[in-house]
Amino acid sequence: MLVVPELICREATADDWSAIWPIFAAVVSTGDTYAFDPEIAEADARAAWMLEGTRQQTFVAVDDDRVVATAIVKPNQPGLGDHVANAAWMVAPSTAGRGVGRRLAEHVLDAARAMGFTAMQFNAVVETNLRAVGLWQSLGFDIVGTVPGAYRHRAEGAVGLHIMHRQL
Amino acid sequence: MLVVPELICREATADDWSAIWPIFAAVVSTGDTYAFDPEIAEADARAAWMLEGTRQQTFVAVDDDRVVATAIVKPNQPGLGDHVANAAWMVAPSTAGRGVGRRLAEHVLDAARAMGFTAMQFNAVVETNLRAVGLWQSLGFDIVGTVPGAYRHRAEGAVGLHIMHRQL
Repeated sequence: MLVVPELICREATADDWSAIWPIFAAVVSTGDTYAFDPEIAEADARAAWMLEGTRQQTFVAVDDDRVVATAIVKPNQPGLGDHVANAAWMVAPSTAGRGVGRRLAEHVLDAARAMGFTAMQFNAVVETNLRAVGLWQSLGFDIVGTVPGAYRHRAEGAVGLHIMHRQL
Repeated sequence: MLVVPELICREATADDWSAIWPIFAAVVSTGDTYAFDPEIAEADARAAWMLEGTRQQTFVAVDDDRVVATAIVKPNQPGLGDHVANAAWMVAPSTAGRGVGRRLAEHVLDAARAMGFTAMQFNAVVETNLRAVGLWQSLGFDIVGTVPGAYRHRAEGAVGLHIMHRQL
């Protein structure tokens, strides 16, 4: 595996959106990993992804001044469920397979702990996205259950969505 | 069981909020069935509950001109997951046990089908809420999985949240 020794993981700023949007658009366009409409409008993507606050935040991984991956963390439920974080990751297709996703994931797990979350839950891991499923399992996530046919995969048709979870 | 023979189930209008809010406030105040903050502000509750559109809607059950229960339906995911509905129900505590919840549920299942949804998913059924779990199982829902400790139950402490699902 090629490595990215200078990778810096940090909170995103509003100025990062112009570099995040091409990654977001490329990732959702394939219709095989995210529920977002593959033709989502930029404004809707920005509203969904650019979070700011003490309980929700957007992150980027930067390699030599280039944003190569991004992640978000937010409460998975309000009120009496807000100790469980929800999170999502996107890696630039040109960077996939170089360990960037894992390193940003480890950064975000630490950040979520620092934000006071005691667990993390994913609601919609596409069951055919074996790279993601394997990454999360290697990072300590369990598959809590699989909702059958809940995702209209562009190539595979209706496939299941895993709910995955780990304590932090 | 007492029955409510004249119960009418229909879409809610903005004017119904004044009758829905006391039900909402009473249901969430006990901290044993919903993740919403038990002391949620009315404006936040209204924003969360009063939905309007072709893909999201609020319903009420009316007994002799009195709103006795309410429900919402919306897509559980955007885009490629929006064929699966999410829904939630609240019954006035004074009316609980009279079959109102079940009748509103049957109405809303039909309405969700008419809205084009092909399945329904709940993300956060409190595992100690045996009345709700039993109702949904009797209406054809399966427990897909249980997220451990994801709900801070006011009396029981950390308890699990069931994900439940059925085809429509």
